[in-house]
Amino acid sequence: MNDEQMMQFALNLAKAGSNQTSPNPLVGCVITKNQEIIGFGAHLKAGEAHAEINALKIAGEKARGATVYVTLEPCSHIGQTGPCVEALIQAQVGHVFIATLDPNPLVAGQGVRRLKEAGITVSVGLCEHEARALNEAFFYYISQRLPYVTLKQAISLDGKITAEKEKQTAITGRQVQEDVHNARAMHDAILVGSNTVCIDDPSLTNRLGSSKKQPIRVVIDRAGNVPSSAKLLNDNVAPTWLFTAKPRDFASARTFVLEDCSLHNILRILADEGIMTVYVEAGCQMADAFLQQRLVQKMILYIAPKLLGAEALSMATKAIQGAFTFTGVEKIGEDIKLTLTMK
Amino acid sequence: MNDEQMMQFALNLAKAGSNQTSPNPLVGCVITKNQEIIGFGAHLKAGEAHAEINALKIAGEKARGATVYVTLEPCSHIGQTGPCVEALIQAQVGHVFIATLDPNPLVAGQGVRRLKEAGITVSVGLCEHEARALNEAFFYYISQRLPYVTLKQAISLDGKITAEKEKQTAITGRQVQEDVHNARAMHDAILVGSNTVCIDDPSLTNRLGSSKKQPIRVVIDRAGNVPSSAKLLNDNVAPTWLFTAKPRDFASARTFVLEDCSLHNILRILADEGIMTVYVEAGCQMADAFLQQRLVQKMILYIAPKLLGAEALSMATKAIQGAFTFTGVEKIGEDIKLTLTMK
Repeated sequence: MNDEQMMQFALNLAKAGSNQTSPNPLVGCVITKNQEIIGFGAHLKAGEAHAEINALKIAGEKARGATVYVTLEPCSHIGQTGPCVEALIQAQVGHVFIATLDPNPLVAGQGVRRLKEAGITVSVGLCEHEARALNEAFFYYISQRLPYVTLKQAISLDGKITAEKEKQTAITGRQVQEDVHNARAMHDAILVGSNTVCIDDPSLTNRLGSSKKQPIRVVIDRAGNVPSSAKLLNDNVAPTWLFTAKPRDFASARTFVLEDCSLHNILRILADEGIMTVYVEAGCQMADAFLQQRLVQKMILYIAPKLLGAEALSMATKAIQGAFTFTGVEKIGEDIKLTLTMK
Repeated sequence: MNDEQMMQFALNLAKAGSNQTSPNPLVGCVITKNQEIIGFGAHLKAGEAHAEINALKIAGEKARGATVYVTLEPCSHIGQTGPCVEALIQAQVGHVFIATLDPNPLVAGQGVRRLKEAGITVSVGLCEHEARALNEAFFYYISQRLPYVTLKQAISLDGKITAEKEKQTAITGRQVQEDVHNARAMHDAILVGSNTVCIDDPSLTNRLGSSKKQPIRVVIDRAGNVPSSAKLLNDNVAPTWLFTAKPRDFASARTFVLEDCSLHNILRILADEGIMTVYVEAGCQMADAFLQQRLVQKMILYIAPKLLGAEALSMATKAIQGAFTFTGVEKIGEDIKLTLTMK
């Protein structure tokens, strides 16, 4: 295998940690010597060993003079697990291929510099595009200090989310529901507004997904309207965090009482709490606010083969042009799923 | 090849006439004897020989005792080309496989009966589903005495067709335009309302399609609002037919002055004129009317990755549920194409 194939292998290894490393990135590492693989590893869980450390464990003494392929710049700061750069220097490896630099501009390039200072050859940029795509949410999270937000809506052909304003009725089918539950399991938090809780009283849990993961449920309730009888405050299935401007006290919810209840401030706090990905299941107003404030990185639209007509509630009321690109389209049961990313 | 494979071959042959047999159906025919193909043919043009006649021409004397595979029940009435049933009887074939019966309930089964009366073995229903799908528009046209209507709209994610009511601006890209021109070439007529002509002054010609076919342009102008300066009344690129309640006279257009200017009556007249397929490129009002009156058999929605907001013009203003099924979804350039058929 040539260098690129080795890096591709490292990228594939990285995926072993999908949905379990948050808020850390996916990282894979392969170590070779004389064209043979002598070790490989991935980062599997925040707080546990990094990919390079796992790979070095397997390579052992053989790592001296070896070539290392790692999908993200090795860390040079001491985090929960000690810097990987020091471990590579100590193992006396000969050459390190790095797919992409650390997304944090304050430390980007520091790992490369220290490796070079130790006399190790360093090559940066092999399979960089794939390496960045692999950790899209992480790169956004680290560089913006905000969670990567996916906005989900289920709409009719004419862009309506429900026929009756005060009663949300599911317009898409069972298979979409399963897809939504799987998506919930892949995010750190689900976010809704108080309107949704007051009208629908949803559980916002993953009941139909293939994994059992339950994300944190985040409710924005500026005016303190959510009743204490709400399901997500009583079912104890997953943590519930409530952001409000009015002091409230719920035994089963963590309450953030804020002077600044803006979406931006709430997202900043979520990021500080280690929430890297947020799945917004919001109504029209909340969706409008997220879109208008450009806080959405991905949009998932499930389209049902129905026309709800002019009297129905629209998915969005404000215009946004030139902001999205279609990146996915598929049929799900009787409905269509469109994926769009922000340009 | 077994019987089913022979019929599949006949179905493939039928497609040779795609977009050139209207208002006749696509028909293919294969004749075999002792497991060998001794003749085959297709119907290629209205007024010209039917598939069975073309196949018999090649088989010649060998047709005696042969097995015939034909995708549609052979005609027993004398049309422009004489009945195929008589030709098969005269050729003394031994066995006729028919994929599906004539869609006209008044003559369905008559061809079968006459063949049987002449001592020929007849088997009906081999590959029937494919045979009906092949001539979907024809079956509708014959059984309903109405053209098969495809409604096309280009919309935003939120189901809007244009940002400004009095000025239609293209919201989808160049590749969608090419797809639309190709679709025009595949229909007998394009239909628009007078609003579209007055506001957009469109040519409604196929300029970007891969074929050079130009469908008839049908304008519904009940109140006589279309100005004589309209492009489609002056360019002579394709025939223009105008349906109106007010007597008007245009040198370059065929004018139908009707007391009953309902869509149903206009479509009935188009059917009587041999128009089997109509491509409706209409604005919101016309689309609503076609949909509400259940005169649409297929809907093509091109979706642009934009939000036009609540102030923009909607594709439809009236609710329709449970009527459509998604039958196609693909990416076209920067946009998405959804195909829906009526249940």
